[in-house]
Order: sequence, then C-alpha cells, then structure tokens
Amino acid sequence: MIQQTRAELDLHALVEEFFATSFATDNPLITEAVRRMLAAGGKRLRPRITLLSAQSSGANPREHLQLAAYMELIHVATLIHDDVVDSAQTRRGVNATAVDFGNRVSVLAGDYLFAWIFKHVTWEYPPPVPHILSGTLAEICDGEVQQLRAHGNIGLELSEYLEIVQKKTASLFAASAQCGAIMGGARAQDVEALRDFGLYFGIAFQMHDDLLDMTEDSRVLGKPAGHDLAERKVSIPLILALKAGDSEFRTEVERFYSGPAGDAAQPVIAGIARCGGLSATREQTARYVNRAKVCLRSLENSAARDGLTELADCLLD
Amino acid sequence: MIQQTRAELDLHALVEEFFATSFATDNPLITEAVRRMLAAGGKRLRPRITLLSAQSSGANPREHLQLAAYMELIHVATLIHDDVVDSAQTRRGVNATAVDFGNRVSVLAGDYLFAWIFKHVTWEYPPPVPHILSGTLAEICDGEVQQLRAHGNIGLELSEYLEIVQKKTASLFAASAQCGAIMGGARAQDVEALRDFGLYFGIAFQMHDDLLDMTEDSRVLGKPAGHDLAERKVSIPLILALKAGDSEFRTEVERFYSGPAGDAAQPVIAGIARCGGLSATREQTARYVNRAKVCLRSLENSAARDGLTELADCLLD
Repeated sequence: MIQQTRAELDLHALVEEFFATSFATDNPLITEAVRRMLAAGGKRLRPRITLLSAQSSGANPREHLQLAAYMELIHVATLIHDDVVDSAQTRRGVNATAVDFGNRVSVLAGDYLFAWIFKHVTWEYPPPVPHILSGTLAEICDGEVQQLRAHGNIGLELSEYLEIVQKKTASLFAASAQCGAIMGGARAQDVEALRDFGLYFGIAFQMHDDLLDMTEDSRVLGKPAGHDLAERKVSIPLILALKAGDSEFRTEVERFYSGPAGDAAQPVIAGIARCGGLSATREQTARYVNRAKVCLRSLENSAARDGLTELADCLLD
Repeated sequence: MIQQTRAELDLHALVEEFFATSFATDNPLITEAVRRMLAAGGKRLRPRITLLSAQSSGANPREHLQLAAYMELIHVATLIHDDVVDSAQTRRGVNATAVDFGNRVSVLAGDYLFAWIFKHVTWEYPPPVPHILSGTLAEICDGEVQQLRAHGNIGLELSEYLEIVQKKTASLFAASAQCGAIMGGARAQDVEALRDFGLYFGIAFQMHDDLLDMTEDSRVLGKPAGHDLAERKVSIPLILALKAGDSEFRTEVERFYSGPAGDAAQPVIAGIARCGGLSATREQTARYVNRAKVCLRSLENSAARDGLTELADCLLD
C-alpha cells in the first residue's frame, strides 16, 4: 500500500481537513453519501499530485485545495457509479453506496456530483481547466466501456490493456498534475512534463493495483481479494502469465472463465504466479515508475519534486 | 401530443437532419446507443426552443444547431439513466437502452455522454453557457433525487411537487431558451424573459405529461399507461384529486400504494377523474402556459415569438 511520504505528509492532512470542513452540496442526501465515502478512507493520491504539481513551481498548496478536492471528487463520483456497474458490496472496507442507498440513488448521486463539480469548475477556473476535466471524465467513461467489452476476453493484448488503463485510470492522474501545474503558474514545458508524469504514474498505479488484487488479503484491500478475476476483468498479471505460460495454464484459465461466477479464484492466482505473471507485472510497473520519474528531471529541484518521486517509488514493492 | 407548429416546422427537420448527419462520439458503442434513442423519435422540444429563442433576436437558427443538439443530448443522457433508475422496459416505444445494452453500459453511456457534451461545450461556447448547462444538470439530478425520496408519499404538497418539477424538468427548458437567447445575441432583458418562458413552459409540460400518463393509451405514449402510479410517483392529477376528494378516495389510494407493485392502476385513475384531478390538472397547466406566454410579451413581434406561443398552446388540450 502507498504510505504518506515525508515531503508531503501535511498535504494529505490538509486535504482531509478540507473535506471535513468545507465539503457540502445543495442536496443533503448526496452530501451524506459522498461524506461517508470520503470518511471510509482512500489515499487521496490525485489531490496530493495536484498540490505537489502546483507547489513544484513555487505556488502555495493551501491556495489550490479546492482544485485538488475536485480531482478526488471526480474519482469518488466514478467509484459510486463503478460500484453500481460492478454490483460491488463493499468499497474501502465499508458498504458500497449502492448497498446503503440503493442503485437508484447511487446513479443519481454520481450524476449530481459530476454536474456539481462542473458547475463549480466552470465558474471558478479559467480555460482550459474546465475543458481538461470534462475531457478527462469522457476518457474515463470511454475506457470503462472498453473494459466492460473486454470482460472475459483472455486474448486481450498488452497494448489493448494499456489503452484501457490510460483512459480509465491514468487520464485523471495526468489531469490532476496538469491542472495543478497550470493553476500553480508553471511554465508550459513544466505543465507538459507534470502531465506526462501523471500519465505514467497512473499506468504504474493501475498495474500495482491489479497486482494487489491478487496478493493482498481482503482486509487490507477493503474489498474481496481476487475480485478482478471473479469479475472476469482481464488484468495485467493474467495477460503476462498467459503470454509466458503453457497451453495447460491457458486451458485452466479458459475453464475458469467459462465456469460459474462463484468459483474461487485462488487456483488461477497460483497459476499466474507459477507462470511468472506476478513478477512480470512488478517489472512492467517499475518500467512505468521509471518513465514517470524521468519526466520530473526537467523540473527545477524542489521538495515538491522529491515528493512526487517518493509517491512514484511507493508503487515499487 | 405536441405537434409541429407551422412557424417552426423546418426547425424540427433541421434538428433531425443534424442528428442524422453530424452526431458521433469517439466511442462507437455509445454512439450506437444514443443514435438508437434518437431514432426512436421524440418531439425535440428543447432544441426547438433553443433555435426559436436564438431566432427571436434575429439570429439564423442554422448557426445554432450544435447548441440546440446539446440540449437534446443532455435530455437523452438523463433518459438513459432514468431508465436504469426506473428499471424501464421501453422508451418511446422501443426497448430502453438498459434492456438492449445492459445496466452497466447504460450507466457508463450516460456518464460518457454528459462528459462528452461538457468537453465540447467548454471548448466551443463562452461563459456563462458551460456554467448554465452544468448547473442545470445538477438541478435535474437534485430534483430526481427529491422525486425518488417523495415516491409513495401521498401527503406531498403541490408546492413540493412544483419544486421537484422546476428542477427535474423545467430547468432544462429554461436553459434551452436562455442559452439560445444568449448565443443569438439577445438583449439582457430578453434573455431573462425567454429563460422565464422556458421555466413556465417546462412546468406546464410536466403537468401535461403527468396527465397524458393517465389519459393516453400505451401505444401513443410509447410506455405503459398509468406508469407513474405503478412506479408510486406522486403526480399532479393525484395531488389535486386527493385535495378535492373524500376520505373514501384517500383510503383507496393508500390501499393501492401499500399494495403489491403489479396492481392495475386503472381504478385509481378512475377515482382521480371522479374527484376532478384530471380537470384540475388541465386548469393548472393552462395557468402555467399563460404565464409562459406573458413572458413573451416584452419581446419584439416575430415569427419566432409566434412559434414559441404556438408551442406553449400545444400543451392545452
């Protein structure tokens, strides 16, 4: 799991304090649903990246808390809908919104939150920030539809996986860095560099997340382990294991994927480990962590730049 | 049903042609889902109001087709999610998106469409248009959550009903008129007048829609008749009938609302008619149609203004 790094320990606390004291929408039921989701935890990586990106060109992070909060709220709104889409029972160790509030309220609460964010962003931020954020949400949804269509397709190529991950996960990390840099007053080439950092960080983050789904226990994950396999999502450890594995392993996976939804994923995870899927995922993750760090080289030396480097290093086991 | 009026017959055709030739998103599955929804029909009232509002200050409606299309697409996106929320089987006489594509794709397709619209609007239109549209979507969702919470509450007051309707339905008609007027270059007081026209028109439209749900047959509606009652939505004919009716009628309604979901709504509709709920709804509708038309008085005389008047008159039986 990603821990808080020294350089930005107080940024995490700042974000938490901001949510605890300053977040409310005009609809009490939706405010409650979002607050519960926020109170259940989360690493606040997107807002931390926004604040560090603003800070890296000398801005005061306290002045960009609102922008950082919108990044986390876009993420929260997508999670609320994801849990409807995935029929998830738990999220971050507590009941999913859809379990406590019902699918109907969850769909509307997510919609409302998206609209509420854009209503504020279009009022409070200059171009191109509103356009970047709405374009990012379009990418996330596009990626999720592509992911849904790829469910159960064990022939998915690594390049196809990367396209999905870039859209559904990395685009929001990229936007978090980019908007933080823009509003922090960074030079154009630094905005670009931070955006690319966010993109590569986001890809590495998703790969790491795919790995944790197979290696951590449910208590740490806050959701059932092996959930991706149970959901027939094709994740990177499986893709890499299938690439390296023998026909016996492929047959085992095919049997699992065509079998009943309730089948235990453990034997498949053991097969993935045996075929080197877990270690190959660690290698791929390290590659993208490295690419992310390379993007930071052109920035001036600062505590914020170190903070971003440390965040990326946390994705390495 | 609202027919095309003479003054703006070709506007309807223009909108249809625009959708047929110019609408596509970057995601083929979502484009297909939206095109099917568009092909199933619909009166295109929101875009027609946008075009007439732009035209009323001398603008060429052909130059505002894109803006008009966004108004219809916001409506389409909310319908896609409504059908998930309501578990609807049909919409405009064809299968609901959720029936053909599944709830998962429907939730994501609606999200994508919202995001796609805002991505374009934030790029193509100056302030305050993007802010008006995102604020309107927030109002629609807020109103729908309020409506969900009011389900089955037969003590709902007319004032509470009006608040819900203003948010969930009238706000988009108001925004359609307002944005058309702004982009058409109307004077500030005319923008205001057209916005108010849209608001009152929208309230009258919802009242008329509530009435049709009890008086039209399913073939004309494109959805089951008495659907609002079956869904335990409290609609205006019921509110007005309960206000005028005796305790016997109230008991009958209470029995229906606490009974199984599949019970036929016909006896309740007959009771509403007997207690004057249908005629009182016609009176209320006429009141809001009149208020809408009063708003148009301050505008200069034009064919577009006549077109708006005719649209409002179509809501009178």
